[in-house]
Amino acid sequence: MTSIINVNLPEQSYEIAITSSSYANAPSSLDQLGQQMASLKLGKKVLLVSNPTIFKHFGERAIASLTSAGFEVASCTLPPGERYKTLNSIQKLYDIALENRLERSSTMVALGGGVIGDMTGFAAATWLRGINVVQVPTSLLAMVDSAIGGKTGVNHPHGKNLIGAFHQPRLVLIDPDVLKTLPMREFRAGMAEVIKYGVIWDAELFAQLEASKRLDQLRYVKSDLLYSILTRSCQAKADVVSKDEKEGGLRAILNYGHTIGHAVESLTGYRLVNHGEAVAIGMVAAGQIAVDLGLWQKEDTERQNALIQKTGLPTQLPDGVDIEAIIEALQLDKKVQAGKVRFVLPTEIGVVTVTDEVPSDIIRQVLRGM
Amino acid sequence: MTSIINVNLPEQSYEIAITSSSYANAPSSLDQLGQQMASLKLGKKVLLVSNPTIFKHFGERAIASLTSAGFEVASCTLPPGERYKTLNSIQKLYDIALENRLERSSTMVALGGGVIGDMTGFAAATWLRGINVVQVPTSLLAMVDSAIGGKTGVNHPHGKNLIGAFHQPRLVLIDPDVLKTLPMREFRAGMAEVIKYGVIWDAELFAQLEASKRLDQLRYVKSDLLYSILTRSCQAKADVVSKDEKEGGLRAILNYGHTIGHAVESLTGYRLVNHGEAVAIGMVAAGQIAVDLGLWQKEDTERQNALIQKTGLPTQLPDGVDIEAIIEALQLDKKVQAGKVRFVLPTEIGVVTVTDEVPSDIIRQVLRGM
Ligand SMILES: NC(=O)c1ccc[n+]([C@@H]2O[C@H](COP(=O)([O-])OP(=O)(O)OC[C@H]3O[C@@H](n4cnc5c(N)ncnc54)[C@H](O)[C@@H]3O)[C@@H](O)[C@H]2O)c1
Ligand SMILES: NC(=O)c1ccc[n+]([C@@H]2O[C@H](COP(=O)([O-])OP(=O)(O)OC[C@H]3O[C@@H](n4cnc5c(N)ncnc54)[C@H](O)[C@@H]3O)[C@@H](O)[C@H]2O)c1
Ligand SMILES: [Zn+2]
Ligand SMILES: [Zn+2]
Repeated sequence: MTSIINVNLPEQSYEIAITSSSYANAPSSLDQLGQQMASLKLGKKVLLVSNPTIFKHFGERAIASLTSAGFEVASCTLPPGERYKTLNSIQKLYDIALENRLERSSTMVALGGGVIGDMTGFAAATWLRGINVVQVPTSLLAMVDSAIGGKTGVNHPHGKNLIGAFHQPRLVLIDPDVLKTLPMREFRAGMAEVIKYGVIWDAELFAQLEASKRLDQLRYVKSDLLYSILTRSCQAKADVVSKDEKEGGLRAILNYGHTIGHAVESLTGYRLVNHGEAVAIGMVAAGQIAVDLGLWQKEDTERQNALIQKTGLPTQLPDGVDIEAIIEALQLDKKVQAGKVRFVLPTEIGVVTVTDEVPSDIIRQVLRGM
Repeated sequence: MTSIINVNLPEQSYEIAITSSSYANAPSSLDQLGQQMASLKLGKKVLLVSNPTIFKHFGERAIASLTSAGFEVASCTLPPGERYKTLNSIQKLYDIALENRLERSSTMVALGGGVIGDMTGFAAATWLRGINVVQVPTSLLAMVDSAIGGKTGVNHPHGKNLIGAFHQPRLVLIDPDVLKTLPMREFRAGMAEVIKYGVIWDAELFAQLEASKRLDQLRYVKSDLLYSILTRSCQAKADVVSKDEKEGGLRAILNYGHTIGHAVESLTGYRLVNHGEAVAIGMVAAGQIAVDLGLWQKEDTERQNALIQKTGLPTQLPDGVDIEAIIEALQLDKKVQAGKVRFVLPTEIGVVTVTDEVPSDIIRQVLRGM
């Protein structure tokens, strides 16, 4: 069975296709990639972009599917990891695009996690002023978050995702089966975003997560729950993005946990703490700020934190991170307007509010308490 | 007197403001920059981008105007010339944007010719996934062409404008007075695009140009004619862009003379022949192709070529450019689809058609005849 979730946008809508791995006989999405892309009437030329590990696992199947659907496929890999999410890597993609004579009707296919997805998306956004991109996310985080919504980009040496563009994919293809090879730590990182959707948008998803005995490893997650995690999270993101493509308003709520999260990531050099872990820490902090401001019930924060803990994600600041350095780093956040830091704060499970009126002292106090 | 031309786009419309230099008492547009931007309610922070020569002429006036309108202005210059229109220069702009803590509501102001305009536009398009840009074109070519329409970008070592994005300015401010310091060769280059508008869109503009005794230097162009050149050219570009923002169809006609023009530019290393000169050569070639295909009258081509000559622009291929190399370079053109090169060909003065069915042999024959 395949679920289709629509992302409806004024300029171009697209589908998120998710196969359910609980139906043993259903063909895996990955093997349908070529066929699905062919139905979109994209040009013949495709550049598949991945990293060496992911390519080894799934590259051949993706290429076989594309080739048998009539595409001319070139492929390349970029070195893995956030620290290669740079303009330098993009320059390599440009060179390969040129070598392969990609045309305006050509398509870049991102086969990988958020790093590959963001870079491929940005290269596609800026090659010939924009060619097609198809996202085939392979990490949980990429499936439920980064592959959807059109944010693309790379890091600046002094700040994450400072360079980028909005560029919506033509298709997002999710095959839950590929998660089997995903390292445990990466699975948990993706779960941070899933918990986020529970807190900001979908109380039912939150409840389903609470009902599961274990969430710390993929193999303990029943296939029905996994399917629910994927479809509900994607639906949440699609809903928000469809209502606010370019972060004029509503879309800001997706940054729940990200304000302090980004600061923590950047201060730990994007290495010690990964994105999802930083978001987990950020959600704990934001939850407490909401409680301190009288916006949220203490017991709801505790339910959130319990879910984070059950997933094996951190709820405390990593050692050696200086609180004043966090406060300072917040000023660099893209969401800063006129020096004011914007926070997304829960008011009940499934509902949040956005404010730029959080006093620095409250932030300090909450961080000291972690 | 100030003429306002509207560029109407679904997401965001904007104005091209042109002061008439024939009204001695009218304040120069450049001195109105701050005031005009203030009325758009842009954020406080502005980064003015220019090159050293242009900054020396007009930088202080621009900054004074911005400052007195309440903006916080930082400024920087990039080295002049097409060969610095690279990702490297963009990286410098990113660094400066970071140093000056530009926010999403901040604005980059491009004060310069097409090179500065394209780079500033691209940096603005991709910094924080898009901040405001205001174009203050100082070359004739930038006024009538590159500042309008939202195409931004840089060159790849192996091809012009291969890297870029669509990013519309919030305002285009044209002060004809700044043309007084423009080198003669650059004035003529801009006139190539003006003649283009006459051929593809505005037979009345074409007739006005024909009626002028000399067109080879700015000082021989009467101020009424200059005003007409600017307003009619901008109107032509605004009309076309408003009807087709992202080159789905109509906008392609703006590439009249550019197919072979780009090839000539790239083969001469962007140095020997400048953009306008290459376009002039390209228009002569396209005109002849149209005649050979029986689409256009021979005498109309001759009228076009006479106008090009009166402007002091080349009508022949530069020495040493290999015809087969041009044919090959055409394949690299961004407009190539499935290997087919797209040509814009006139059918009468003011009207063109677009075709990708020009046999290579006709192209060869026409180029040999030049
Ligand atoms: N564009 C957006 O809207 C958005 C949203 C959230 C995050 N992001 C970005 O996403 C990035 C993080 O994404 P990520 O967490 O996927 O990191 P990632 O892309 O680095 O992937 C994590 C690790 O898992 C490996 N991996 C991925 N899929 C695998 C699989 N199926 N089998 C085996 N190994 C696999 C990767 O090789 C990598 O080592 C960050 O750069 C972040 O800024 C973007
Ligand atoms: N974005 C678009 O839609 C578009 C359209 C056409 C051309 N372009 C691009 O524009 C560029 C060419 O623009 P250009 O012809 O303005 O070249 P340019 O920006 O290099 O300017 C030409 C020269 O004139 C000088 N100059 C400019 N204004 C001056 C002034 N008022 N006084 C003294 N000197 C002055 C500059 O310093 C430069 O040396 C090319 O890179 C081309 O690709 C873009
Ligand atoms: Zn995230
Ligand atoms: Zn041009």
